[in-house]
Amino acid sequence: TGFNGSKLWGGRFVGDTDPIMEKFNASIAYDKRMWDADIRGSKAYAKALEKAKLVTAEEKDKILHGMDQIHDEWAKGVFDVKPGDEDIHTANERRLKELIGEPAGKLHTGRSRNDQVVTDMRLWLRDAISILKGNALQLITTMVERAAVEIDVLFPGYTHMQRAQPIRWSHWILSHAVALSRDVEQLQEISRRVNVLPLGSGAIAGTPFNIDREMLRQELAFDDISINSMDATGQRDFIAEFLFWASLCLTHLSKMAEDLMLYSTKEFSFLTLSDAYSTGSSLMPQKKNADSLELIRSKAGRVFGRCAGFLMTLKGLPSTYNKDLQEDKEAMFDCYDTVHAVLQVTTGVMSTLKINPSVMEAALSPDMLATDLAYYLVRKGVPFRDAHGISGKAVFLAESKSIPLNQLTVEDLRTASPLFSSDVSAVWDYSSSVEQYSAPGGTAKSSVAAQVEHMRTWLKKQVQ
Amino acid sequence: TGFNGSKLWGGRFVGDTDPIMEKFNASIAYDKRMWDADIRGSKAYAKALEKAKLVTAEEKDKILHGMDQIHDEWAKGVFDVKPGDEDIHTANERRLKELIGEPAGKLHTGRSRNDQVVTDMRLWLRDAISILKGNALQLITTMVERAAVEIDVLFPGYTHMQRAQPIRWSHWILSHAVALSRDVEQLQEISRRVNVLPLGSGAIAGTPFNIDREMLRQELAFDDISINSMDATGQRDFIAEFLFWASLCLTHLSKMAEDLMLYSTKEFSFLTLSDAYSTGSSLMPQKKNADSLELIRSKAGRVFGRCAGFLMTLKGLPSTYNKDLQEDKEAMFDCYDTVHAVLQVTTGVMSTLKINPSVMEAALSPDMLATDLAYYLVRKGVPFRDAHGISGKAVFLAESKSIPLNQLTVEDLRTASPLFSSDVSAVWDYSSSVEQYSAPGGTAKSSVAAQVEHMRTWLKKQVQ
Amino acid sequence: TGFNGSKLWGGRFVGDTDPIMEKFNASIAYDKRMWDADIRGSKAYAKALEKAKLVTAEEKDKILHGMDQIHDEWAKGVFDVKPGDEDIHTANERRLKELIGEPAGKLHTGRSRNDQVVTDMRLWLRDAISILKGNALQLITTMVERAAVEIDVLFPGYTHMQRAQPIRWSHWILSHAVALSRDVEQLQEISRRVNVLPLGSGAIAGTPFNIDREMLRQELAFDDISINSMDATGQRDFIAEFLFWASLCLTHLSKMAEDLMLYSTKEFSFLTLSDAYSTGSSLMPQKKNADSLELIRSKAGRVFGRCAGFLMTLKGLPSTYNKDLQEDKEAMFDCYDTVHAVLQVTTGVMSTLKINPSVMEAALSPDMLATDLAYYLVRKGVPFRDAHGISGKAVFLAESKSIPLNQLTVEDLRTASPLFSSDVSAVWDYSSSVEQYSAPGGTAKSSVAAQVEHMRTWLKKQVQ
Amino acid sequence: TGFNGSKLWGGRFVGDTDPIMEKFNASIAYDKRMWDADIRGSKAYAKALEKAKLVTAEEKDKILHGMDQIHDEWAKGVFDVKPGDEDIHTANERRLKELIGEPAGKLHTGRSRNDQVVTDMRLWLRDAISILKGNALQLITTMVERAAVEIDVLFPGYTHMQRAQPIRWSHWILSHAVALSRDVEQLQEISRRVNVLPLGSGAIAGTPFNIDREMLRQELAFDDISINSMDATGQRDFIAEFLFWASLCLTHLSKMAEDLMLYSTKEFSFLTLSDAYSTGSSLMPQKKNADSLELIRSKAGRVFGRCAGFLMTLKGLPSTYNKDLQEDKEAMFDCYDTVHAVLQVTTGVMSTLKINPSVMEAALSPDMLATDLAYYLVRKGVPFRDAHGISGKAVFLAESKSIPLNQLTVEDLRTASPLFSSDVSAVWDYSSSVEQYSAPGGTAKSSVAAQVEHMRTWLKKQVQ
Repeated sequence: TGFNGSKLWGGRFVGDTDPIMEKFNASIAYDKRMWDADIRGSKAYAKALEKAKLVTAEEKDKILHGMDQIHDEWAKGVFDVKPGDEDIHTANERRLKELIGEPAGKLHTGRSRNDQVVTDMRLWLRDAISILKGNALQLITTMVERAAVEIDVLFPGYTHMQRAQPIRWSHWILSHAVALSRDVEQLQEISRRVNVLPLGSGAIAGTPFNIDREMLRQELAFDDISINSMDATGQRDFIAEFLFWASLCLTHLSKMAEDLMLYSTKEFSFLTLSDAYSTGSSLMPQKKNADSLELIRSKAGRVFGRCAGFLMTLKGLPSTYNKDLQEDKEAMFDCYDTVHAVLQVTTGVMSTLKINPSVMEAALSPDMLATDLAYYLVRKGVPFRDAHGISGKAVFLAESKSIPLNQLTVEDLRTASPLFSSDVSAVWDYSSSVEQYSAPGGTAKSSVAAQVEHMRTWLKKQVQ
Repeated sequence: TGFNGSKLWGGRFVGDTDPIMEKFNASIAYDKRMWDADIRGSKAYAKALEKAKLVTAEEKDKILHGMDQIHDEWAKGVFDVKPGDEDIHTANERRLKELIGEPAGKLHTGRSRNDQVVTDMRLWLRDAISILKGNALQLITTMVERAAVEIDVLFPGYTHMQRAQPIRWSHWILSHAVALSRDVEQLQEISRRVNVLPLGSGAIAGTPFNIDREMLRQELAFDDISINSMDATGQRDFIAEFLFWASLCLTHLSKMAEDLMLYSTKEFSFLTLSDAYSTGSSLMPQKKNADSLELIRSKAGRVFGRCAGFLMTLKGLPSTYNKDLQEDKEAMFDCYDTVHAVLQVTTGVMSTLKINPSVMEAALSPDMLATDLAYYLVRKGVPFRDAHGISGKAVFLAESKSIPLNQLTVEDLRTASPLFSSDVSAVWDYSSSVEQYSAPGGTAKSSVAAQVEHMRTWLKKQVQ
Repeated sequence: TGFNGSKLWGGRFVGDTDPIMEKFNASIAYDKRMWDADIRGSKAYAKALEKAKLVTAEEKDKILHGMDQIHDEWAKGVFDVKPGDEDIHTANERRLKELIGEPAGKLHTGRSRNDQVVTDMRLWLRDAISILKGNALQLITTMVERAAVEIDVLFPGYTHMQRAQPIRWSHWILSHAVALSRDVEQLQEISRRVNVLPLGSGAIAGTPFNIDREMLRQELAFDDISINSMDATGQRDFIAEFLFWASLCLTHLSKMAEDLMLYSTKEFSFLTLSDAYSTGSSLMPQKKNADSLELIRSKAGRVFGRCAGFLMTLKGLPSTYNKDLQEDKEAMFDCYDTVHAVLQVTTGVMSTLKINPSVMEAALSPDMLATDLAYYLVRKGVPFRDAHGISGKAVFLAESKSIPLNQLTVEDLRTASPLFSSDVSAVWDYSSSVEQYSAPGGTAKSSVAAQVEHMRTWLKKQVQ
Repeated sequence: TGFNGSKLWGGRFVGDTDPIMEKFNASIAYDKRMWDADIRGSKAYAKALEKAKLVTAEEKDKILHGMDQIHDEWAKGVFDVKPGDEDIHTANERRLKELIGEPAGKLHTGRSRNDQVVTDMRLWLRDAISILKGNALQLITTMVERAAVEIDVLFPGYTHMQRAQPIRWSHWILSHAVALSRDVEQLQEISRRVNVLPLGSGAIAGTPFNIDREMLRQELAFDDISINSMDATGQRDFIAEFLFWASLCLTHLSKMAEDLMLYSTKEFSFLTLSDAYSTGSSLMPQKKNADSLELIRSKAGRVFGRCAGFLMTLKGLPSTYNKDLQEDKEAMFDCYDTVHAVLQVTTGVMSTLKINPSVMEAALSPDMLATDLAYYLVRKGVPFRDAHGISGKAVFLAESKSIPLNQLTVEDLRTASPLFSSDVSAVWDYSSSVEQYSAPGGTAKSSVAAQVEHMRTWLKKQVQ
């Protein structure tokens, strides 16, 4: 009798199995994406089993051959997932048994799903990271080369969304390219922590039977071997790091997208997106919306949500493998897919948008040279704080007269400081203004050109 | 001829369209789940168009009939999504055109995808909330009725994961049921904010042509009409609220799951999960893992990740519709699916687990009555602070002697306070200890029974 | 002698107490903000103790009088927090003992810090919510009245940050006011769940000694009594809900701030912030930055961070009180302080900014009437989908000729559709365009005025 | 008149300044913690100004001397923050002016608060990271040395919170130490990205006047110079990375704390915390709560909340400096303080807790050797899958008979497989069971000892 059978309190009726629970528990719907990694891991493991004399050479060959057949089935899209296949590991082993019979039952010797699944994930993510790195480098290359070509275009630099100082358009492009280059460097570092072999950690205690972990490492081209079997099977730091990496990378692109959206408003009109990255309205015939940029901006939230969710899942978990960790895979896949798409779309946007240099330069206004006016005085010995105040007075005077700052006469300016003389007219030149900023990192042509060269050199190093 | 064509900087080649962008932009893969809501919305809108004399009665009938045919196609799983169908709205309207010709072109008069999509979402979520409410009530019912049946079982109540005071097992069950009842109440409140008609808000400015929004409201059974068209098309508060609701609800269940996992460890052994909610190990033959509980615990992170991601996407967005809002739907579907599964699995777990009353009661120990020992002194006039100190001394004394607290003699106790006498033996009774807590909310039998009745009454009100 | 003494592995030396641990554990630095709530709770509890005959009338009076003295000390800023006062409860009780002696030792009878702290928090938050509601209503009132005054100002409505259709400035203001009114309604609902008495729940099992919880409820003006003592002491849903409320409310204001920042750029020039809400630059004399708006926008992140952090802390916690819950208070205080400041600063911004109606109206452009051009054809019987296409052709024609849409001749337009005739000139009127949207929620003057009235009525109801 | 003066809509009255806005805008309350970094940055900058001939040698000396005086005032706690000091930069410069007069006005030449503030933060965080690294190394050392001493203690290894296989206690300790060593390595990487000089980037465009950035770099001991001035002043990646680092590090410790809490329950009784890290109950005299562990566990949420909040603040921000970035500092300080305390408290906990080896070993049970039973058969040539099934049958048989697995007779076992013979008795030895796992990372004594050596070597490298 007992509560199990009688259900006195009227819960859902459940027999031996609960189909909702089975679906809830299964991961095959998404972890089948790791079919290739799973096969690679099992083939390497079969070799280690042979070395440990747990399978014969003939059995090993059968396993390898069977795994190759399974590979073909997946590659051709004909692998048949069956009801009991709760995950990719079960599915592949079940199929192996069908294909080769008894030796299949030896493959799991000394191995646990705990070390198997995390080996698969590391193999999969290693490849994924390599692709993302390529996507990022292509985007950076596009941006750097565009910056090289359009180096002579000036436009307003903004701080606080307000016009600040004249800068080069290429300086703006490079500011985003530099951020992306940090993303690539961080991805490399994560990659090193991904590329560590956990196989041979068993469920928790390690592996018996003289399984040669160094051999497994070489077979699977890992850089290192995990240090502690409990840590190896229970940690998902490499996933958490990857999810955060995706979040920071897309936060960078959300920032670039925001700038580009501003610049493509009617009010700014600095640039026009290619039609390939714009869409129309179902209601308003004149609309051309920068949907690509809005989608790029939105994805920072999406991937950070995955990161936040996974960290919350990890918080306070006890040691070693707990089923909670199953949340790792969908997060990993979704972040990869999202960043993969975003990087490519951004490359498309950046390589096809058209700038409008005349509008950009027309947006420069004399008040943006108020700092230069102060510097004029600094060069005549006025302490900067005083010069800043005098220039501020001149700005106020021009506003009172409703004239541009550069239309103030020398006499007007002298009411603010007697040091002004006719040579002040040289201040009102945007081209020479930007040339002041020739220190490293600045917006002078030489400095921007140096940034382009710096990035080209950096890019070359990345593909070596 | 400009950067668009020449691609001097080597970006991805993109012709008139970029297939990655098209896939990135399309939502049909997931928003097709709203096919029924979309059809209901369009049928109501067709009636409003007729009333506004924008379609004839005959045209309206054609539209309604066409929409019914489309409904059948979806219901039978034969609706054919075509390459240009970027979203469910486009798909359904495209199909309508194929079925009925020209009148289909009138359906979108004065309507925008901006008000259409949010109408569909509200219709869909309204139904989803209703289902979730049912799932939650079934779980609560299961728990309350179980609490009623097992009211006589005592076991240790824990604070800080340390044994604190004897309580009823049913008191524990009800503590979680009460939390879930708050979830249901909050869901009702959200439901009221979901059930507001946005249709007739157009893209931003509202609807022209005397579209009767009150008629639309009645047709679609909304409680209210949105107040401002810009807000109606650009806000997703009801989604954000739903995502947070899901997060808090599953945080409650993560807490209950944590308790149950503790109680089902070998060390506690208070209860055993049904096999239907447990799984084995691929390596260790003896293992029986509470995977269901671990999955329940893990999902709080998942859904909160969706909430965090969506809030981050909303942050700093300009007014009205921006494509960023497209992140709303996958988050909504995923949270619904997750909570839907979790509530049902939890119901299954709670209706099939077996408790082990003898182990539970054996886990009660005399030191858990140290507070009662202090109360004994309070009843003799000792201020509680002093009584607490005296009882603490007794605890220390028992520990020093390595005997249980109730094995101290009256003489032993008198070294701590002269007020102890032989009637102290009455303290060492777990059953009478719990009966002290008879105030509302306490663990006395009468109080727990009152809680059961309170919840039964509450449950009855919910289904009216 | 065991590891405790010998420290063979070289950890930090720690004697009987670890000062870092003591500081880590103490909450007095921030929970002293609840001094008044703590005193109110204790006074009510003293009365219940008297009723239960656990203190005499005289003792009760001493306690009440002592508590009043402590109140005075806090109010005057002379309360002296001493080293052992780890939290506000300890501090107040320690001081009471100094002031009145032995009866102080009876105050905690049957009470635990577990029910005391959550009672204090609910009392404190109830008051805080009331203040925030007042702040929000003042902001909404300011916005609604401003909308009433400036109802005749037209400007471009944007979707996707691109000019969409002409709307009223007041329509924009109200779109944000309506969102805030939902915040107020949600805050009310939370307030009901805050206003529930937990006192009398003890540490976990409830309260013995016939403490009259109904009397406590009345004394402290709570609406309800908590249902289950384990839930009452261990749940912080009301905090989680409040933190999310703050997040959604500030997300609304981040959206409004973003709009206002756009509108106050040089490029838009629709409005100017008061100097009281702007700041200058340390380097650039001409800069006037909308720091207030940027701060408003930034705070959505801050408060959501608190919400995310607290949910993560709650995830997977076992039942009842765990010290982890101590994270609740700083989060609550910080979110209150932040929202309190943001609402007031936003009110200041909204009541002092100056709009520039001539620039706003000058930003309207004929292409924003392309939808109206389609509607012109709809009124002549063209299905909307076709009319949309014809209007799109007209837009393209105007762009090809580099002329505004309204400069196309009737002959030009007839190349797109023969239905165009001279009456098309009536389309090009922004004032009559907006008047089309007279359905509820639209941008017609009558509709916006109705929204103002709706909000005024709503506001009146809130202060009753 | 205008809206500014008339306040027709009844907002808060605000004169020239709004005190709430001033407080909202000011950061001095917290950024004063960077007083030393600010002084160091300004002293270096004064030297660069001299080299650029913008100040004389005498002026430079006055500035340096004045800054030293200010340093003394802060160090002695006598620096007087005045009402106008909105941030640490303003405060220090204001004080310099008071002390040395006019040359103070030259200090800000070519510098902006935008590059100044981020220079200060990088200097401050560089030092903070160094301290945290030391704290982490001390904790790891403590753990590694404890593992070395207690290497012979066996206890149950758990997966899914269920007993899995016998392991060494030291294996458990090292699993957490290894995770922390990854944290240290990641912190080093972040440190390199922190240690980049932004000074000389101005507000946005760079620095004019031949300021020698290489000299600044050397003076301030940065590794590199920022590449692009817009990026340098507007990016806070190093903060975001640090916040996430803190989150992942404390998530590790939340996991360790969770284990320790389990192990210190009455039911497990594997270990006892030192009194220095435990607290009592205000109500229950017998309670000894592991508050330290609960606080450690809770802080993962707190710091991740900071990370989530800051990422959300960054999302979608336009390029360069926006006031939103002011959220960076409180997050940085709070995460530093929290991790600083947690690492030290954890070191205290780990160096003072006492384990109970006899209880730990008594918790090992024969069913934990079911895998070994399968391995027994594997060694006799049975494929693992079959052996797993046979062992499972034996487990079931023992359960049916209500006897421990090792009490089954050889005859009993033979009902499951004929390969069992009397040598099976050798399986039931926990000590020899753990010795099987001698591959790298396993729980055999040699393997654990190798892990200890690995960590000792690693530790030595860190302090070089």
